[in-house]
Amino acid sequence: MLVLSLLVILLAYLCHPMRALLSETDFDTVDSFLAEHSNNVIQNLTSFLKIPSVSADPSRKQSVRQAALWLIDDLKAGGLENVQLLETKLHPAVYADWLHAADAPTLLIYAHYDVQPEDPVELWTYGPFEPTVVDNRIYARGATDDKGNLYVAVTAVKAMLAVHGSLPVNVKLFVEGEEEIGSPNLLETLKEHSALLRSDYALSADGGQVTPDIPGICLSARGSVSLEVHVRVAAADMHSGVYGGGVQNPIHALSQLLSSLRDIESGRVLVEGFYDGVTDPSEEERQDIAAFPQSEREILGIYGVNESYGEQGFTLLERVSLRPTLEIVGITGGFQGEGIKTVLPREASAKISSRVVNGQSIKHVLRCIERHLRKEAQRIGGIVLSFTEFSWEANAYKTDKKTYMNSAASRVLKDIYKREPVYYNMGGSIPALSHMKEVLGLDTTIFAFGHLDEKAHSPNEFGRLDCFRRGERAYVRLLSQMAKGSIPKEEL
Amino acid sequence: MLVLSLLVILLAYLCHPMRALLSETDFDTVDSFLAEHSNNVIQNLTSFLKIPSVSADPSRKQSVRQAALWLIDDLKAGGLENVQLLETKLHPAVYADWLHAADAPTLLIYAHYDVQPEDPVELWTYGPFEPTVVDNRIYARGATDDKGNLYVAVTAVKAMLAVHGSLPVNVKLFVEGEEEIGSPNLLETLKEHSALLRSDYALSADGGQVTPDIPGICLSARGSVSLEVHVRVAAADMHSGVYGGGVQNPIHALSQLLSSLRDIESGRVLVEGFYDGVTDPSEEERQDIAAFPQSEREILGIYGVNESYGEQGFTLLERVSLRPTLEIVGITGGFQGEGIKTVLPREASAKISSRVVNGQSIKHVLRCIERHLRKEAQRIGGIVLSFTEFSWEANAYKTDKKTYMNSAASRVLKDIYKREPVYYNMGGSIPALSHMKEVLGLDTTIFAFGHLDEKAHSPNEFGRLDCFRRGERAYVRLLSQMAKGSIPKEEL
Repeated sequence: MLVLSLLVILLAYLCHPMRALLSETDFDTVDSFLAEHSNNVIQNLTSFLKIPSVSADPSRKQSVRQAALWLIDDLKAGGLENVQLLETKLHPAVYADWLHAADAPTLLIYAHYDVQPEDPVELWTYGPFEPTVVDNRIYARGATDDKGNLYVAVTAVKAMLAVHGSLPVNVKLFVEGEEEIGSPNLLETLKEHSALLRSDYALSADGGQVTPDIPGICLSARGSVSLEVHVRVAAADMHSGVYGGGVQNPIHALSQLLSSLRDIESGRVLVEGFYDGVTDPSEEERQDIAAFPQSEREILGIYGVNESYGEQGFTLLERVSLRPTLEIVGITGGFQGEGIKTVLPREASAKISSRVVNGQSIKHVLRCIERHLRKEAQRIGGIVLSFTEFSWEANAYKTDKKTYMNSAASRVLKDIYKREPVYYNMGGSIPALSHMKEVLGLDTTIFAFGHLDEKAHSPNEFGRLDCFRRGERAYVRLLSQMAKGSIPKEEL
Repeated sequence: MLVLSLLVILLAYLCHPMRALLSETDFDTVDSFLAEHSNNVIQNLTSFLKIPSVSADPSRKQSVRQAALWLIDDLKAGGLENVQLLETKLHPAVYADWLHAADAPTLLIYAHYDVQPEDPVELWTYGPFEPTVVDNRIYARGATDDKGNLYVAVTAVKAMLAVHGSLPVNVKLFVEGEEEIGSPNLLETLKEHSALLRSDYALSADGGQVTPDIPGICLSARGSVSLEVHVRVAAADMHSGVYGGGVQNPIHALSQLLSSLRDIESGRVLVEGFYDGVTDPSEEERQDIAAFPQSEREILGIYGVNESYGEQGFTLLERVSLRPTLEIVGITGGFQGEGIKTVLPREASAKISSRVVNGQSIKHVLRCIERHLRKEAQRIGGIVLSFTEFSWEANAYKTDKKTYMNSAASRVLKDIYKREPVYYNMGGSIPALSHMKEVLGLDTTIFAFGHLDEKAHSPNEFGRLDCFRRGERAYVRLLSQMAKGSIPKEEL
């Protein structure tokens, strides 16, 4: 019986349609097709980048929709099916699939087609919505984040369909239009369309690689929660001569509140309950981080920072990826023009943003910060405190090195880059990661080919065309790898 | 011999030419003249207010000059002599005199013809440079500060010259064009023209009265010194996810620095050396302040402030007039728009303004603040500190109740308002007061008829026309009073 069972299993394995399909995937032909059509790809990407799909700008609402419709047309032309808008309360998501790989797994590819505002526009060398190719780079808002990265995945899928008329796995594309405003409607959209989106594995085409020479697999992303604190003293600004010294100064009071949040010497956050659920990095995590191929000096040098600062007992990379933070990201009060105006302002406010790690609850962190500030405010006379909470929030996300998808991605990256990928932890936040885990039960592997220096969110954003081309080949290979059983057991 | 000496003195007193002139000053005729010409006065003032003489705005430099030239023409037409521009490095001052009261004292009248910027212009009901009379008030930028107040003195002088062909005292008018930018060239101008400006007494037509019902004599003004502190961490703004927790946050560091300046509970400034030279208010000063006819609640209520705050051991009015202050008048850093942007800013800065009192040195206070901040910064990792000092500075000024001029002003105010004036101390600063003391050796009596609620420096600035008319009559009487010997000895 045992022998018979094994025989049946072996037969089933050898006859699995995807094994057959995998062996049929002719990489050389697909690669040649991609090379032949690379100018077309750039032309298409250029059309896509020209549309100012700035999700944060209410006046651009129609442009955001136009970008979604552009993508719909492009996906239909490329052979994708069930192509449709998924409407939300604000900007629609785009869905498309190809589901004819019978018995093969289904892969969800996430990305976003919206972009950051282009300001300060005067610092751009080329127009932010006039894509310009120079030295094998394409300059435009969204070139790397995330239209460029998204189009790498789209191009790979379209090329495979063009060459083979089929894909080795079932693919569902889910491209949202609200990532740059914190994906406020994503959770609801995923819930509403959970049946449509149900898949076996998930990839994110939003993210990036370590350097153009070094591949990487991201194992975690920090979450994010934000609020604004307002300190009000009076109904109107006052003359600093007439009232100065006699009423509370809201900027002074705010400074007192803010300086109480963190110990300036140890870098430790002093908010009671803030670290609840936080664990120290594991030995393996510390080793992975220590093995990261960029030095502290190189990382700080990108922004002209002289010295690292933060929580004692942790390295720079640990601080920016595996430790929670409490940052003041904006402050405003009183006169801000040139020179001096001796005004005693009626109010002052600060925006506080916390990056949270696995184990922390964003709601709990928010409550702890508010409670701390209210308590501190009790010993400050003459102020009224209020808060604004923002919908830009994300839970922390964490995955294992050895998920099926991470292993598959690792093999492909090694094959393409000719070196082992490094494992890293993302300091930033992608709301989709935890939302897809919550609603669809999926871990997500970030499989994207942008880089840290490509000025995402800044003037002169660009994408490296050669890295995009490498990414297209990587996607072709990863989809083939994903055909069930294609990864040797010893690597799992 | 003693009897003879007394007789000579008595004779000299009775025959003094100004005694004669005083008795000749026919108040009824001058008052009638002012009443008959009040529409002309409003028309003239309207022409003057139309000129946007914003000294802070480089694009209005010609308008500032135009206002000076308008004043020159008006003073010439009114019978003033030696009317001329006194050029400075920026905006000219205007000088005029009438010096034919032989053996009578010479009186210097100070004022300024420049105005504050009009922004935020959208909050004005009428155009800031389209003077509009409604309900016996004239609305325009400068209506009270200081074109309106200045024109009260000018109108009085012109009326006396028109009616009598002479003045009871010698008068020198000195009207600067840089008060609203801190009188940066005033000291030099006074020194350069000290011979021309030499006088026996000084008045300021810049200032105001307590309320429309209560007259007041100002005994002191605080000085002012300002600086900006800059905290720099990086060459460019950073992504708060990518770098957050790993580098110093400049807003956090700045908050720490600012909160160290003052004890939040006692309100005491913690800067070493800050109080050097400061003495506690005298018993008489405390009594004058306690007798001030507005309650703390009324004063705070104007700006919707709930509770007074400041240095323990002092009342609200003591804090805002006789105690030095250290106020943060502006702060800026990071993202300040709607919502949240998770940026880690490269730098943050704050504007600090100190009001100093008699006995303090502004230069010493400036050095103490900088030294304190540099010392505090030493325990804050990862920041570069720098400072901007502003030329807007003034020394504190203090005078006695019983100067000849204060006594004369007191008599006139009592006569006009039918009640005793109160003695008060100005919390704000008028650079001219200490400069005129330093260069010309003169104490200055503030003799002006604006009020605290007339929105100087704010939208919808206005002047009360009935208070201006009362002011004109007061000036006529004060000039007559100033004829030597006209004040009974028991009042001196």
